Amino acid sequence: MTIYEIITKKKHNAELSTEEINWVVAGYVSGSIPDYQMSALLMAICFCSLSDRETVDLTMAMARSGDMIKPETGGFNVDKHSTGGVGDKTTLIVAPIAAACGVYVPKMSGRGLGHTGGTIDKLEAIPGFTTELPYEKFIENVKKIGLAVAGQTSSLVPADKKIYALRNATATVDSIPLICSSIMSKKLATGADGIVLDVKFGSGAFMKNIEDAEKLAEAMVRVGKLAGRKCSAVLTNMDKPLGHAVGNALEVVEAIEALKGNSPADLLEVSLALAAEMLFAAGKGTSEECLAMAERAISTGAALEKLRLMIEAQGGDPKVIDDYSLFPQPKRKKEIFAAGDGFISGISCEAVGMTSLKLGAGRQTKEADIDPSAGIVFHKTVGDKVQKGERLAVLYTSTDCDIEDIAREFETEFSYESSKNFSEEKSVKKNIKGY
Amino acid sequence: MTIYEIITKKKHNAELSTEEINWVVAGYVSGSIPDYQMSALLMAICFCSLSDRETVDLTMAMARSGDMIKPETGGFNVDKHSTGGVGDKTTLIVAPIAAACGVYVPKMSGRGLGHTGGTIDKLEAIPGFTTELPYEKFIENVKKIGLAVAGQTSSLVPADKKIYALRNATATVDSIPLICSSIMSKKLATGADGIVLDVKFGSGAFMKNIEDAEKLAEAMVRVGKLAGRKCSAVLTNMDKPLGHAVGNALEVVEAIEALKGNSPADLLEVSLALAAEMLFAAGKGTSEECLAMAERAISTGAALEKLRLMIEAQGGDPKVIDDYSLFPQPKRKKEIFAAGDGFISGISCEAVGMTSLKLGAGRQTKEADIDPSAGIVFHKTVGDKVQKGERLAVLYTSTDCDIEDIAREFETEFSYESSKNFSEEKSVKKNIKGY
Repeated sequence: MTIYEIITKKKHNAELSTEEINWVVAGYVSGSIPDYQMSALLMAICFCSLSDRETVDLTMAMARSGDMIKPETGGFNVDKHSTGGVGDKTTLIVAPIAAACGVYVPKMSGRGLGHTGGTIDKLEAIPGFTTELPYEKFIENVKKIGLAVAGQTSSLVPADKKIYALRNATATVDSIPLICSSIMSKKLATGADGIVLDVKFGSGAFMKNIEDAEKLAEAMVRVGKLAGRKCSAVLTNMDKPLGHAVGNALEVVEAIEALKGNSPADLLEVSLALAAEMLFAAGKGTSEECLAMAERAISTGAALEKLRLMIEAQGGDPKVIDDYSLFPQPKRKKEIFAAGDGFISGISCEAVGMTSLKLGAGRQTKEADIDPSAGIVFHKTVGDKVQKGERLAVLYTSTDCDIEDIAREFETEFSYESSKNFSEEKSVKKNIKGY
Repeated sequence: MTIYEIITKKKHNAELSTEEINWVVAGYVSGSIPDYQMSALLMAICFCSLSDRETVDLTMAMARSGDMIKPETGGFNVDKHSTGGVGDKTTLIVAPIAAACGVYVPKMSGRGLGHTGGTIDKLEAIPGFTTELPYEKFIENVKKIGLAVAGQTSSLVPADKKIYALRNATATVDSIPLICSSIMSKKLATGADGIVLDVKFGSGAFMKNIEDAEKLAEAMVRVGKLAGRKCSAVLTNMDKPLGHAVGNALEVVEAIEALKGNSPADLLEVSLALAAEMLFAAGKGTSEECLAMAERAISTGAALEKLRLMIEAQGGDPKVIDDYSLFPQPKRKKEIFAAGDGFISGISCEAVGMTSLKLGAGRQTKEADIDPSAGIVFHKTVGDKVQKGERLAVLYTSTDCDIEDIAREFETEFSYESSKNFSEEKSVKKNIKGY
């Protein structure tokens, strides 16, 4: 077996054997296969794709490249993953809902590299909150209160870390089997019994159309099923930011508000769909019953109580739930006003993400610091009728960025139409279950 | 301009600009673009190919990556290149013919990595012969006797050296524009006014079918023309070894015999076609006139005389021309006999090459030594009627290889048919001129 033969085989669209895939992953992690051969193979995979069997083999080989955790909580552990979108704070909402309904959510999360931080960064906007939990404490918290969020240890899925970095440098990211193996290897390695995937599509998502999103969702669900997990996916729209807030502290506030029953419709819809899938995976009832349970967890305040307990258990100040002024406050803000009359027909997610990044809410390099106070709050959204001069959004930052310049550019990203000739679509398009 | 954007562009089958191609070649040679990004780009090129314009740009960028020689011989300089085949000793025949007809042949050649050595290695089988000529001496010899063969200096086309090594390690060799740029960048950098290409096709060639060979030939001729050279290609068959000898000293002997008028038909046909193209490029007459001149150069002994002068001028012993025992003699030989009655219907070129390599005639690594005495001489060839026990070929070697074992395996490579139901085709299939 040589890497040259394996590259040649894939290049000629032949199927690689399980042994060959295991050998490549092990060789690449150990360093015996150099980057330049791996990147050639990855590019060939981008063109020729992988069969279902190859995708499962690759995912399993990657998952096994490091530690395989099996969280011994004694309960049914459910994980949730989103393929990423602007304003996506659903983890902060669905994990407390699931915990309130008796499901265990031992969540391992990464830091974000992009327009805002990841779940870890968002939670760290809460004064005192730590995600550096020793493993025993992490499991203990889950057993006690039903949920815990910890940073991923470096011993998890080293193959994904190395392969992802290479894909990111060689324009080999956009391959459904490679995306699937990257996401699912991490989900399998962290050992959840149930896995709920939020696969986003639309102009603000990695997958621009629902067909590709569906292919990715099906691939991931198939891998999850074959690995013996209760796995399902929800396809959700990402043509505009989810909810009204983009940032770190700003998104935590919006999540708290959602758990208080004050959520923008799109955010609520997606969160309830995901939470219901988590409950369904844990065998809590029919889809309808699970959705009703999730709604009840919000209306009774049970989910908010779980969030409060988690904040407390992880060293954070639970008073933030009732007093948002305890969050890091932005030093500067800038209001954005409507440039004309009409209905807002679109806000480019890409522009929102880029603006958020410029304001300091995200990081461009792994080492960069995040400004927890920075971000955007929308006061008007797609479909809203506005008059010239009405306030559309407010930009926040504590960094020394040129907020005036950022605002001027951001203003031009709103598009208007004279009549409302577009339908407001639902955010949740489809559920795909692997069981 | 980033390499990421360029890889993405090519991956999506878009055309790269001249600036982008120049930037990639310069960046890869300087080391600012790492191997792993270059190999991803090369793989994308294998799938999406390059346009004619991109191919020319790549070839020119590679040619300009090192020294660009312009041999100041005062005459019309013609170069000849073969895409490589088993038993191909045509350079040793056509260069003297061209020189005998008043064309200058300042030939820079590489060492072989394969079943036999390259032209340099073959010539070095002549006792005393050196290809390490100072540039001034090289030019002086060409002016005086019409031809000289020297080793390529390392300052020629560093881009090709680096890119070729990477392609060789990443299964990105089989791309017509990449093959074209590799060959033609070297031809352009060595500055010949006329370039004649021997593009081989068939089971023993890199291009298995004539269609691909034609595409490659057309691409190379197009590049040559755009670079202002008189460039043409001859498509020749490589379903069986060319001539009867495979090896280093053995092939020099066969070339000398050819110049004495005793050539196997296929070798003579290909050599005359190539020589005629070289004369045509130099404006020596019509195609028919050039072919007649080439034939005359053999029949009058003028070409043999040029070879003798070149051997003398480069320190070799010219007496080898009349006394083959002066060549390094093999210590051992092994005859191969027909295993059955019938017509020889095929000899796998691959097996012949591999056998030659095992006998010591080629090198598997750049550092390996060559046994100049090793090789194979065929006494029967495809189409010949043989009886069981008749001698087919003789294997020669001075190495300590297991010649008995090699012979046993080699015997099985001959295939027989009871009747001669295959036509003997011409070796030269087509000429493609760029001017």
